[in-house]
Amino acid sequence: MKFFHVKTVTETLDVIAREFEPIRPPVELSLPNALDLVLAEDVVSDEQVPHFARSTVDGYAVRARDTFGASDSLPAFLDVTGKIEMGKEASSYLKEGQAQSIPTGGMLPDGADSVVMIEHVEEVDDLINVYRQVAPGENVIRAGDDVQTGELVIEAGKRLRPQDLGVLSAIGKTKVRVYPSPIVAILSTGDEIVPADRKVLAPGEIRDINSITIAAAARQCGAEVIDGGIVPDDYPLFVQRAKELYDRADLLLLSGGSSVGTRDYTEQVMQSLGEPGVLVHGVSIKPGKPTIIAKAGGKPVMGLPGHPASAMIIFHLFVAPLIRRLQGESPSPYDRRLPARISRNVASAVGRSDYIRVKLEEREDGLWATPVFGKSGLISTLVKSDGMVEISANKEGILEGEVVQVHLFR
Amino acid sequence: MKFFHVKTVTETLDVIAREFEPIRPPVELSLPNALDLVLAEDVVSDEQVPHFARSTVDGYAVRARDTFGASDSLPAFLDVTGKIEMGKEASSYLKEGQAQSIPTGGMLPDGADSVVMIEHVEEVDDLINVYRQVAPGENVIRAGDDVQTGELVIEAGKRLRPQDLGVLSAIGKTKVRVYPSPIVAILSTGDEIVPADRKVLAPGEIRDINSITIAAAARQCGAEVIDGGIVPDDYPLFVQRAKELYDRADLLLLSGGSSVGTRDYTEQVMQSLGEPGVLVHGVSIKPGKPTIIAKAGGKPVMGLPGHPASAMIIFHLFVAPLIRRLQGESPSPYDRRLPARISRNVASAVGRSDYIRVKLEEREDGLWATPVFGKSGLISTLVKSDGMVEISANKEGILEGEVVQVHLFR
Repeated sequence: MKFFHVKTVTETLDVIAREFEPIRPPVELSLPNALDLVLAEDVVSDEQVPHFARSTVDGYAVRARDTFGASDSLPAFLDVTGKIEMGKEASSYLKEGQAQSIPTGGMLPDGADSVVMIEHVEEVDDLINVYRQVAPGENVIRAGDDVQTGELVIEAGKRLRPQDLGVLSAIGKTKVRVYPSPIVAILSTGDEIVPADRKVLAPGEIRDINSITIAAAARQCGAEVIDGGIVPDDYPLFVQRAKELYDRADLLLLSGGSSVGTRDYTEQVMQSLGEPGVLVHGVSIKPGKPTIIAKAGGKPVMGLPGHPASAMIIFHLFVAPLIRRLQGESPSPYDRRLPARISRNVASAVGRSDYIRVKLEEREDGLWATPVFGKSGLISTLVKSDGMVEISANKEGILEGEVVQVHLFR
Repeated sequence: MKFFHVKTVTETLDVIAREFEPIRPPVELSLPNALDLVLAEDVVSDEQVPHFARSTVDGYAVRARDTFGASDSLPAFLDVTGKIEMGKEASSYLKEGQAQSIPTGGMLPDGADSVVMIEHVEEVDDLINVYRQVAPGENVIRAGDDVQTGELVIEAGKRLRPQDLGVLSAIGKTKVRVYPSPIVAILSTGDEIVPADRKVLAPGEIRDINSITIAAAARQCGAEVIDGGIVPDDYPLFVQRAKELYDRADLLLLSGGSSVGTRDYTEQVMQSLGEPGVLVHGVSIKPGKPTIIAKAGGKPVMGLPGHPASAMIIFHLFVAPLIRRLQGESPSPYDRRLPARISRNVASAVGRSDYIRVKLEEREDGLWATPVFGKSGLISTLVKSDGMVEISANKEGILEGEVVQVHLFR
């Protein structure tokens, strides 16, 4: 058996970033189906958006020069020679001294370079009095103002948000290549674990929590989930079920029974699934130290701690970034943590990253985070929490009033 | 026709909070299907969790009193009288001077009150030497430590997160009453709008952006979406299509054509759908002023501005809170905005809330937000943005280096 040094949080995240990538090839999907998935191709526009100059107001298309100097006391007079209709070509050339009425979004006629707002115009038969001057380009979106032909619209590695789908639809790119949702299989282990729908528990039994919480968290990250059920502390059966799930999934999560026996099993099972085997065996973190990460034939396999609160914290710290890697996402340049002040002192051991659960409270002087204490076996502490706060390995604790960064639970 | 005063952002949010509530009655769903939905009942536990005292370590169940004073130089000697197995009842009573081996998660036997960690014990045949004293309750989760019988576990109005499903599974509550996902119908209007899959555009035509972006944003909020397609600027047809969609949906969104004609139609259509009709007609905000909110027979109907960037900003500001109301969610006590410093001066008009799009950048001295300027007709400005920042109605602008709150786009 190999000997492993316990890794730091940063070292563990580095292993995840370095060792894993999307398992399955990109697929081509229509825009609505590509929402929240990660783009697998650079998208370059074949055309310009808009493909014609458009008015941004209701008014009259004009030549700006014809309005120069116009004011309330000295309006400019222009001949109205046409009426542009929405969605129709503006076919009549606009000459010096002329104006054409135009709706918001209407196509600017050739010859015109700007639009006078209707509010600044008085209509008199086939003439208008223009009471304010406009500059060339005023109240107009020019052809290509939104997207230029040949422009890189969205880069590969970006997760597609609603507005990203919007720009893709604007350029007529209604199908895109994206990485498929990774399939995550979850196997709970432990002789004491029974399904959550078991009505009456025998002494010593507890209902399965982790497979419900971890499955839900994985689905929130965009994964499809295979519920692998519960396997007892029986090595041959455990190996067999793990192998079956490993074959079907892109990521196998073993929600560890917490006994010594199960822990040993878990590691052996992970080693048995393929080379190179276990990469991380223990992280210098509380809670969650017994986390194991293996790689078997390119696929990640993770052993999560059995305590529900530990398992969820490890999910947020390591499983979510791992799923994002499998989705092909480029690392985000910033972190969505929320600063808040801690409402009491919290002690911590140097050399270990401590993660405490916190509840947020908006007070008159800003946001405060109150620690929710409790053993990591208690799921109720997580229910009372809004997020978690790291006390980094080089600190002995945090002091009341200190600003901390809260990683929010969704 | 009624006359409406333009409302402030706060007044508009008050209208939404006051006037709307879930349209359809709660449904009973299994836990995985209830993720991200809002609980429609208070959940009180019928039982305690755990329902027996459990060890949190591998070791020996003991009476703490028997270990008092034990140290490396003066160990306590205890008789090992049993071995507790995972998931099994601890049936043998533990007497004074006795110990029973116990795995993490194992059931504490009657008579024992604490567990000595295996690391602090030396095993000698049927005896153990205990080298460290434990306090009563040490290394033990007591029955009911996680959840007490009769405890209010989760309140109605809470959106169910993975950990909330976890505590529900722990108490054997595998079905819960939740509000169903609201159905949002979207109808795009405008003679110039053509479907996004139209390959070649005629002069004056543009592809539909809003129905794609708004549908995707609504789905991210947990709504089911009916794509109502595009209707031209033809009043009878517009009324008919709007009425059909209104009948099928919990919320009807009219993505406005931007011409004067369409704007008038939109309001008439909204008034025609039912009483009391239009509640908000115009918001003192830039972009997004022409926003309309109506209530027809209890259902909300909203008219969104036609410009894609305006429509998305109005979605984040008003449609998302409206969907949360329809989902039955209690208002969140804090806001998930991210503080950052603005990288340049931005001017604004007093008396109007301005929303500027920003791109975030992590610098050595913290998070900075750089304004992304561009007309609200441009979707590309949203693609380049990470979020939006409000310049409130009482400010003339914001100064470089000032801390702003960034409402993140997902």
